[in-house]
Amino acid sequence: MTGTDFFDTFRLLSVADIARRTAARLAGAEDVAGDTLIGGVASLADAGGGDLTFYDNRRYRDALPLCRAAACFLREEALPLLPRGVIGLVTEKPLHAMTLAMAELFPQATAPTSLFGAAGVSPNAIIHPDARLEPGVIVDPDATIGPRAEIGSKTIIGSHAVIGPHVKIGRGCRIGAHVSVSHAFIGDRVIVHPGARLGQDGFGFTPSRKGYLKIPQLGRVIVQDDVEIGANTTIDRGTLRDTVIGEGSKIDNLVQIAHNVIIGRGCVIAAQAGIAGSSEIGDFAQIGGQSAIAGHLTIGEGAAVAAKSGVMRDVPAFSRFGGAPARPLRGFLRGEALLARLSRRMSDKNSNKN
Amino acid sequence: MTGTDFFDTFRLLSVADIARRTAARLAGAEDVAGDTLIGGVASLADAGGGDLTFYDNRRYRDALPLCRAAACFLREEALPLLPRGVIGLVTEKPLHAMTLAMAELFPQATAPTSLFGAAGVSPNAIIHPDARLEPGVIVDPDATIGPRAEIGSKTIIGSHAVIGPHVKIGRGCRIGAHVSVSHAFIGDRVIVHPGARLGQDGFGFTPSRKGYLKIPQLGRVIVQDDVEIGANTTIDRGTLRDTVIGEGSKIDNLVQIAHNVIIGRGCVIAAQAGIAGSSEIGDFAQIGGQSAIAGHLTIGEGAAVAAKSGVMRDVPAFSRFGGAPARPLRGFLRGEALLARLSRRMSDKNSNKN
Amino acid sequence: MTGTDFFDTFRLLSVADIARRTAARLAGAEDVAGDTLIGGVASLADAGGGDLTFYDNRRYRDALPLCRAAACFLREEALPLLPRGVIGLVTEKPLHAMTLAMAELFPQATAPTSLFGAAGVSPNAIIHPDARLEPGVIVDPDATIGPRAEIGSKTIIGSHAVIGPHVKIGRGCRIGAHVSVSHAFIGDRVIVHPGARLGQDGFGFTPSRKGYLKIPQLGRVIVQDDVEIGANTTIDRGTLRDTVIGEGSKIDNLVQIAHNVIIGRGCVIAAQAGIAGSSEIGDFAQIGGQSAIAGHLTIGEGAAVAAKSGVMRDVPAFSRFGGAPARPLRGFLRGEALLARLSRRMSDKNSNKN
Repeated sequence: MTGTDFFDTFRLLSVADIARRTAARLAGAEDVAGDTLIGGVASLADAGGGDLTFYDNRRYRDALPLCRAAACFLREEALPLLPRGVIGLVTEKPLHAMTLAMAELFPQATAPTSLFGAAGVSPNAIIHPDARLEPGVIVDPDATIGPRAEIGSKTIIGSHAVIGPHVKIGRGCRIGAHVSVSHAFIGDRVIVHPGARLGQDGFGFTPSRKGYLKIPQLGRVIVQDDVEIGANTTIDRGTLRDTVIGEGSKIDNLVQIAHNVIIGRGCVIAAQAGIAGSSEIGDFAQIGGQSAIAGHLTIGEGAAVAAKSGVMRDVPAFSRFGGAPARPLRGFLRGEALLARLSRRMSDKNSNKN
Repeated sequence: MTGTDFFDTFRLLSVADIARRTAARLAGAEDVAGDTLIGGVASLADAGGGDLTFYDNRRYRDALPLCRAAACFLREEALPLLPRGVIGLVTEKPLHAMTLAMAELFPQATAPTSLFGAAGVSPNAIIHPDARLEPGVIVDPDATIGPRAEIGSKTIIGSHAVIGPHVKIGRGCRIGAHVSVSHAFIGDRVIVHPGARLGQDGFGFTPSRKGYLKIPQLGRVIVQDDVEIGANTTIDRGTLRDTVIGEGSKIDNLVQIAHNVIIGRGCVIAAQAGIAGSSEIGDFAQIGGQSAIAGHLTIGEGAAVAAKSGVMRDVPAFSRFGGAPARPLRGFLRGEALLARLSRRMSDKNSNKN
Repeated sequence: MTGTDFFDTFRLLSVADIARRTAARLAGAEDVAGDTLIGGVASLADAGGGDLTFYDNRRYRDALPLCRAAACFLREEALPLLPRGVIGLVTEKPLHAMTLAMAELFPQATAPTSLFGAAGVSPNAIIHPDARLEPGVIVDPDATIGPRAEIGSKTIIGSHAVIGPHVKIGRGCRIGAHVSVSHAFIGDRVIVHPGARLGQDGFGFTPSRKGYLKIPQLGRVIVQDDVEIGANTTIDRGTLRDTVIGEGSKIDNLVQIAHNVIIGRGCVIAAQAGIAGSSEIGDFAQIGGQSAIAGHLTIGEGAAVAAKSGVMRDVPAFSRFGGAPARPLRGFLRGEALLARLSRRMSDKNSNKN
């Protein structure tokens, strides 16, 4: 891959230039040609001449000696495995350095762009006369913006997005295709991927003699700066307070955030996780894929919930939980190992009897 | 929160009036000022002067003595914790009473509304000449309604919704933004939240020498009256019979309902649950979040399946199941507790050896 | 059900004709009337006069003697249960034969069609002047096709679908309503159901002093021929290599496929499953509903992962895994049974003490 089909290389950079911009040390090849030009990027296995790559995961150790890239970010200790002819870019954080280099080579890929090559407001967008767009907003064809909505400068509203009445969206945001936003205030530099749903009614009912009575959902969704929200993720607005996604938190695809949930700053929530109503997730917590947090719980600051967990009680700060019902991760894994051992022994006994 | 940003208070009500409409008893403050006007609602922790709140969950007991609301629904036994100056509204069902009061104060929040402030049929909607809309239908901009579709009076079709050919939607429904409906008949007062998908092909294949052969899906989706369907939920149409969602059932976000599933009346299905093909869920059953029901099973009337369960056999009526594979809930939780205990003991032994 | 509401019977076929086209043997009724005309299809329980049905699952054995269909596909050994008056169509693969017959009777149901009864390109679609559509493409109202996109002949682009710049879609495809596709190449005869998201950024971040740094996602989504992708499913594009869905693989609703995942040929991935970044799924593997595959793993050819599994290590070819963390299925189920037994015994002991 050298940036052909969907991303053009913005500019060529020399290996020496890349080393300087990423604080990496040139090494490896016998006479390092720092002026070698990098024109593309690729994975360790696929990289060819002119490509930049990186090595940061021991799973791919076997691929390193076969690497044919022009240059490779890697840690000092991996250097002996690097083939002659590949320039080493030594750093303690290969993925981080690679990220910086990719952003230099492909700046247009650091945030989603218009899917119509649009600039300005498409004549095919439907914008309510009472909506207010700052200068520099891009609106793709077929987007719909409701009355009194406000959109900050340099924000892109994707094709077929629907922005409801009174919604405020900050500056430099990327609202993907088919996103719907209602009853929400969104900060700056927020990225919302296609099909995400923000601000619809939470799931609240109270039984009555005539069936379930719908509890009016009067709160909002508040999305702070630098948040990213994945495709087809759903975030319900609050009932009597707001649903809040804290600054810099990253949410993957198909995640469910129920009403009144408060997510702190810098959290990472992996795909298909679900957080039930009124739970609070502390700053920098990590929630694994397909895990579930029951309602009205507190997940402490910096806690980590393993993938597929089912959390039914509060999780202390900086602890690691796993399992369903979730308990401290180490204990959970020990229990699973024990069960595997016991059932193996049981089955051996049964075989011996036969 | 006092109903500012997205919902205006429809009217002010006195505390005495609210007590009367919810069958609550005024109590608490020394000389109860029944003519105190309520202008907003808020959670126990956030409520301030003029706000109505409620106390219904012991988790929030610490917040009750600090409450600064004008009035608070609560049970008799919680009354001693209510601060002087807050008017008590004593009732056996605080949440239910609060719901009734919220509906009086904010009637426009009892069902989703147009996201464009629209009345009537938007000139930007695309409606097939052979579609039939009863008087009083609201269609938001960019909705698309296909040939011979029929929409009942007072139904709102949201922006960018797609209603396929022959689809029938009853009266007083709310079809959210970006919803797609095909091969479906929908009753009255049904709410469908943004991005839900109703009526696409079920997932049916039969292996053949040329790969998987697609089984034609000839059934429909039948949604009975007063159903609510969450955002980005998917409901496939049936193969040879219909997929049916029974009267008054409530389905949360990101739920998967496969072809031929029959859901009874008054069921509650929480977020990210999945029900595989041809299973039947009895009336008033409750299916917890992220739980899975395998195909061709029967979940009995009034049964409760705990969150994150994996149900692989029939569940008897009025029973409670949990775990994966699911078994009676009490036994499942006992087993998990036993495993935790055994593995702790094992680990203690190992520590003693060291 | 006799094909009224949404699907008209394309033509009537005689039972003898159906037997011939499906290689079934006429049997059962005393004097088999091979010229009986079949006008519809229905499930075993619902079928009436003129209907064709099938019996392929012992769960429905009780319904067979009560069947009132005109004819029924079934295996030789089930023949004695068939009521007099119903014509037996004996075959080793009743579902397969039924599928062939349904495709003959309802050819228009073998792939999704326009939701607007459209032919050709709707004047209400927005097609960039630099997009290239082969002759015979159908574009429903409100679809949006970006610059330099290419669409092959006989492909249907559904209402409100968004096709991004440079995207290539092959021939005979069905792109459902509200689908978004960017950074993707799609083969021939691919079916994408409503609301699926293909090609958005993968979920890649690296921590930095200023919060999480977004890793540019430069790869593509490659969807090979004859793939089917379910409603609201999300497939992220790759980072440095492509995300690939192999030929003939079938993916259900609400599935998450992360960046760099490679899915082989003929795989079946059930609803709400999730495959984390950079994992590879071998040809003809089967991934059960709500199961999760962690990142950077290999699932071998022909392997089967049970529903609700959490796979944390490689799965060998042709093996069956289950549980979370997943282990060989037989061992997992034995462990669960053991745990149930132990906890029951424990509870009996406790009861005896009381």
